Amino acid sequence: MRFSIAFWHTFRGTGGDPFGAPTKLWPWEDGTDSLAMAKRRMRANFEFLDKLGVELWCFHDRDIAPEGKTIAESNANLDEVVALAKELQGTKIHPLWGTAQLFMHPRFMHGAATSSELAVYAYSAAQVKKAIEVTHYLGGENYVFWGGREGYQTLLNTDMERELNHLATFLHAAVGHKKKIGFNGTLLIEPKPQEPTKHQYDWDAATAANFLRKYGLIDEFKLNIECNHATLSGHSCHHELETARINGLLGNVDANSGDPQIGWDTDQFLMDISEATLVMLSIIKNGGIAPGGFNFDAKLRRESTDVEDLFIAHIAGMDTLARGLRNAAKLIEDGSLTELIRKRYQSFDTELGALVEAGKADFETLEKKAMEWGEPKVPSAKQELAEMIFQSAL
Amino acid sequence: MRFSIAFWHTFRGTGGDPFGAPTKLWPWEDGTDSLAMAKRRMRANFEFLDKLGVELWCFHDRDIAPEGKTIAESNANLDEVVALAKELQGTKIHPLWGTAQLFMHPRFMHGAATSSELAVYAYSAAQVKKAIEVTHYLGGENYVFWGGREGYQTLLNTDMERELNHLATFLHAAVGHKKKIGFNGTLLIEPKPQEPTKHQYDWDAATAANFLRKYGLIDEFKLNIECNHATLSGHSCHHELETARINGLLGNVDANSGDPQIGWDTDQFLMDISEATLVMLSIIKNGGIAPGGFNFDAKLRRESTDVEDLFIAHIAGMDTLARGLRNAAKLIEDGSLTELIRKRYQSFDTELGALVEAGKADFETLEKKAMEWGEPKVPSAKQELAEMIFQSAL
Amino acid sequence: MRFSIAFWHTFRGTGGDPFGAPTKLWPWEDGTDSLAMAKRRMRANFEFLDKLGVELWCFHDRDIAPEGKTIAESNANLDEVVALAKELQGTKIHPLWGTAQLFMHPRFMHGAATSSELAVYAYSAAQVKKAIEVTHYLGGENYVFWGGREGYQTLLNTDMERELNHLATFLHAAVGHKKKIGFNGTLLIEPKPQEPTKHQYDWDAATAANFLRKYGLIDEFKLNIECNHATLSGHSCHHELETARINGLLGNVDANSGDPQIGWDTDQFLMDISEATLVMLSIIKNGGIAPGGFNFDAKLRRESTDVEDLFIAHIAGMDTLARGLRNAAKLIEDGSLTELIRKRYQSFDTELGALVEAGKADFETLEKKAMEWGEPKVPSAKQELAEMIFQSAL
Amino acid sequence: MRFSIAFWHTFRGTGGDPFGAPTKLWPWEDGTDSLAMAKRRMRANFEFLDKLGVELWCFHDRDIAPEGKTIAESNANLDEVVALAKELQGTKIHPLWGTAQLFMHPRFMHGAATSSELAVYAYSAAQVKKAIEVTHYLGGENYVFWGGREGYQTLLNTDMERELNHLATFLHAAVGHKKKIGFNGTLLIEPKPQEPTKHQYDWDAATAANFLRKYGLIDEFKLNIECNHATLSGHSCHHELETARINGLLGNVDANSGDPQIGWDTDQFLMDISEATLVMLSIIKNGGIAPGGFNFDAKLRRESTDVEDLFIAHIAGMDTLARGLRNAAKLIEDGSLTELIRKRYQSFDTELGALVEAGKADFETLEKKAMEWGEPKVPSAKQELAEMIFQSAL
Repeated sequence: MRFSIAFWHTFRGTGGDPFGAPTKLWPWEDGTDSLAMAKRRMRANFEFLDKLGVELWCFHDRDIAPEGKTIAESNANLDEVVALAKELQGTKIHPLWGTAQLFMHPRFMHGAATSSELAVYAYSAAQVKKAIEVTHYLGGENYVFWGGREGYQTLLNTDMERELNHLATFLHAAVGHKKKIGFNGTLLIEPKPQEPTKHQYDWDAATAANFLRKYGLIDEFKLNIECNHATLSGHSCHHELETARINGLLGNVDANSGDPQIGWDTDQFLMDISEATLVMLSIIKNGGIAPGGFNFDAKLRRESTDVEDLFIAHIAGMDTLARGLRNAAKLIEDGSLTELIRKRYQSFDTELGALVEAGKADFETLEKKAMEWGEPKVPSAKQELAEMIFQSAL
Repeated sequence: MRFSIAFWHTFRGTGGDPFGAPTKLWPWEDGTDSLAMAKRRMRANFEFLDKLGVELWCFHDRDIAPEGKTIAESNANLDEVVALAKELQGTKIHPLWGTAQLFMHPRFMHGAATSSELAVYAYSAAQVKKAIEVTHYLGGENYVFWGGREGYQTLLNTDMERELNHLATFLHAAVGHKKKIGFNGTLLIEPKPQEPTKHQYDWDAATAANFLRKYGLIDEFKLNIECNHATLSGHSCHHELETARINGLLGNVDANSGDPQIGWDTDQFLMDISEATLVMLSIIKNGGIAPGGFNFDAKLRRESTDVEDLFIAHIAGMDTLARGLRNAAKLIEDGSLTELIRKRYQSFDTELGALVEAGKADFETLEKKAMEWGEPKVPSAKQELAEMIFQSAL
Repeated sequence: MRFSIAFWHTFRGTGGDPFGAPTKLWPWEDGTDSLAMAKRRMRANFEFLDKLGVELWCFHDRDIAPEGKTIAESNANLDEVVALAKELQGTKIHPLWGTAQLFMHPRFMHGAATSSELAVYAYSAAQVKKAIEVTHYLGGENYVFWGGREGYQTLLNTDMERELNHLATFLHAAVGHKKKIGFNGTLLIEPKPQEPTKHQYDWDAATAANFLRKYGLIDEFKLNIECNHATLSGHSCHHELETARINGLLGNVDANSGDPQIGWDTDQFLMDISEATLVMLSIIKNGGIAPGGFNFDAKLRRESTDVEDLFIAHIAGMDTLARGLRNAAKLIEDGSLTELIRKRYQSFDTELGALVEAGKADFETLEKKAMEWGEPKVPSAKQELAEMIFQSAL
Repeated sequence: MRFSIAFWHTFRGTGGDPFGAPTKLWPWEDGTDSLAMAKRRMRANFEFLDKLGVELWCFHDRDIAPEGKTIAESNANLDEVVALAKELQGTKIHPLWGTAQLFMHPRFMHGAATSSELAVYAYSAAQVKKAIEVTHYLGGENYVFWGGREGYQTLLNTDMERELNHLATFLHAAVGHKKKIGFNGTLLIEPKPQEPTKHQYDWDAATAANFLRKYGLIDEFKLNIECNHATLSGHSCHHELETARINGLLGNVDANSGDPQIGWDTDQFLMDISEATLVMLSIIKNGGIAPGGFNFDAKLRRESTDVEDLFIAHIAGMDTLARGLRNAAKLIEDGSLTELIRKRYQSFDTELGALVEAGKADFETLEKKAMEWGEPKVPSAKQELAEMIFQSAL
């Protein structure tokens, strides 16, 4: 399976939260944001990948290299760290995806592509331009847009329509640049309903799809579905994966999980074998996920402070997905669930059904049939049976 | 304002809930589902409209006339009641919209257009065909699709893709029939996230818009936004109205409200002047809502059992929206809020801003500008000021 | 394990919901509410218990026998059906618990013990009196209070303090009657946060405990924890079980589950082995649950309409809890999780720790120690490890 | 009205969030955590109080003075800043309440009084001891316990019972120390359901009350109800205020508000006049709130970065509560709502009602009456009328 380590959580996660100071004191950290520290951190990343036997990694521009005083300086810092990463990657390792961090710095407080300030829009363009370039340089297979500040806090001070238009022109420009530099990786949008903003424009898979269709971007993007973002939007992760798949947009999975009773992003390691099995059923249906993969967009709990915990969490995450895949395979081989579904819809596998599915059955034809047939017979949906079959495979 | 009475809540609402038997014992009811009772009820409806001075009403086919043993019998019952309604309407009154009830009867338990049974699909077509026809006959200005059972309970037994395809062919057939009979009213989809099903396909405005775009239906439908459905989907009513408006889809408002701490549809009368003011700000921005209107899709609480309560609730609902309109007008005349928003985006009212908005600014141009400009200045968003201005108008 | 069948869901559940008519057409049903039908239904109940090999059942007075026109008539009906049940029970079978249905009839629309009407309070007393008596007669081991309408819809029309006082005097009277007739079964309160009312007074375990303590009832009652009610109140089922246990109040489990993304009571059969394992860990810690048990307060989905589905669901429910018990036993035998917890608190297993736990360490003593000790060492909480150990047992 | 400024939000709030760096650059700040800066900040606080005409303020020990390397050093720092505050207070100003910050520093990551580490328990005791002393010295009228880390992240690694016992012995020790030093202020517990921990032990008013009763602390504490915490726990602010009041525990109000659709603490300024009116109805019923008051536990939005915004927000907050008081007074003078409630319960204002309320009506007496009376009459609850009366006062 195409597992990937998230640089930001694993190497930049501090354990801080809105009510608490950092708790992680990794032995390789000196607490500075220097270029030297960035390089030491990058070496730690590759040591970690090596020890876990994982060949993919993901990064934000600003978490691998310190921001400079100017764009030029930031770019130079980035180039230096990226050169080291390139070297350390060797022939086996490369990024699953790269992205630009457009949400931490105060300049992005009103958004990046949807900021009310043109200067921020331009700044963001410069930053994304560079981030796509370094992703390309490192052999990254995808590039992700997560719009952490692309949304609003209140409609009372927001021109939502204008902001959405700006987001669209920005993404069109990104497509243009990608093509210009010959980057063939997939562009991905990562839906999230809210947090940090009250409403994020890429709320869920369907909302992102509507946006892409409205602005003529549907053929240029796919979606990166994160399980915790799914549950925060009121959907199961399985639902979001299926929605993306049905819309032809399933590109990557941020494999984590949230707490169903917590209203913010907890980014926990996915440990639930039931959830993992559902995820894998979707992936198999999709014919795999490459060039996407499973990015562990997950962080240790604030109170987990041993280096050992980093290993335990990632290994448990991989094991869980592996158990999920094994269970999904078992379910498919067994065939009962597939057959249960096939049978439910078999009335459409008829002549009239084919006519309906071809869009050729008008209301008059259907009315005539309905009157002829009389009261329809409606069989049990067998939900408990389906659940029992599913649980038996776990 | 174009207020409308919802026949089902006002004349068929029993006060029953999942844990309780009916509580309403209206004096005109005899407790039967006879044709004679249907006519007496229809007369009560027009007496109520007359006493309130309201000129629009909304109905489901099955709540105005009893279902027969066959489609033909049901249609005959419907014709008889509709003929009476036509007569009682006179020249001043007509339906804001009609719709078909495709969720109460067990035959619809797996859906109507998305049922796993072809016979149910055909039955639903026959019923919608007739419902559009009687809406047309009564001079209805719109026709609504609320897919009460168009959704799933679990993905374990559901072929979501096939169901969505069926929904699309069904709606295409509805468009075909509408045109065939010369009905010029607007077709409306009413989003709701869940209840009765775990997941309803028309989850929210953006989801419905994505569906309409994907299946080439975007020019044939608008949306009927219900405030309580909006809040259940995790959005404010204002957000859903604005999303519909921006997508060119704002067609009607089901003016009610829910309890922000309750996870099911409570369909309460909208009594909150703050909410009403936000609704009206959207309507004004939309240039009004006709041929849509404000349908009171709201019911008395189970414990409100006096005939008087029906009047109190509707009058309070109309007063609230009227206060909302007055407040919205005050805000617009005052202009501070509009000006606050205009100013926030003024950096885009420049030459480069225009280039960006025309989609002509590529990443290289923008990067050059960003480097030239240096660190962007980012002013306060003035949210508290905006809230204070808003509250002062209430 | 002490499994119990819930008469109401299994034999009175119709499949109806707020948007839909009944869907179940069990072969033994004639659709009437006659005494003869009540008896046939009771025979079906015992046939079902026999086929499943289950020896406990639960009931509401009004779901086993039809309500009459007067209390006397209702009591007579109840006596007749109860006599039959007594006979059918034989020597092996008896009720886990009985209860009174004080929420369906419109007379209870403002509550039963908390109704604003004294006559309803008195009526409820009469009904509970009888229900305790027949539970006692049938050899029931517990008696449950679920206050379906004991709560409010809005504080604007409610005297919450007076209502709570009434609830307390009512429960004191129930205790008095129980003792008077020599019923030694446990009285149980079943917490639920909301639905049907907006706020139910027995919100969750802690709220119920506070009420019992405030009114001097803490030694007379225990709690019946329902998993779906737990999740609706924002807690995990495990949390509610533990809270009840710690307060010395864990008396019974309504073993079902909800959907974490649905805001109303879905009363699904518990099929999740992870949840079942957590439940069993609490039960073992409690030293078992007798005279309580596991009541399947769960219903078939509306769309599950085969008689077979009743069996599938109950068997799957029992299997799931059995797997849960096996997993819990495995975890306890393995001991890693217990040891992980013990070690975390070992600093309190010291002389000063003992002083603290005895309530004898004042702030001055502690301050002196704290100054002496300097900065505390705070080890990792090992959450991911704990989760990995837990998942490995599934 | 007894308004109070929250030092932490107003003078230590940085605008940072889990996805973003600080945004506030107040002119008096130099970005350090020095003692000199602490004093400049304190002067700013008193200038702000003076300009607003507010005479009460609230603080955490660690937000007014920098933490030192040892407890002794921290205490010395605190003494120095407190001496300045005492001087600046003059005769008119004093703290509404003080508290200890036991959640930011990593040492508290497993809790303070509920930490698994005895050394942290002792440290916390030392810190609270000092915080009560300085609150007393400054003339504070109350002392607050908000248990930011008193809770758990998962039950898998937690001994909840032992932690709750520790919390109780800690609070008993706090009571002991308060009495010893002659501090007559009220001790307050501030309920919050979750965040930062998954489950906080002081979940809501009822949970806190149960804890206080169980451990014999009920006469020593009152509650500080925060509106945003109330809504996060699934209750309205009005409900929590009433629950506290009925339990004799209403001690203070943290006057802020959240967004009903956001699952974390947003601590917004209360701007909703409807909410403010409900709050004031409770306060009036309570006979006022002194020695408690209305603490603006609210922060500017991250994007509000003008000094002016601090004034706008506080002034709007005070205006809103003033409008709320005026509306509440209007409602009480008008009397319709009070009368509506009184009438609903008048059947209890009878001889039998009095017997019931005195706890002297047993089930036999009540059954006899119920049989004699026959079917109870149950009038309308008039919810819509109550809502209309309420809204008319706004």
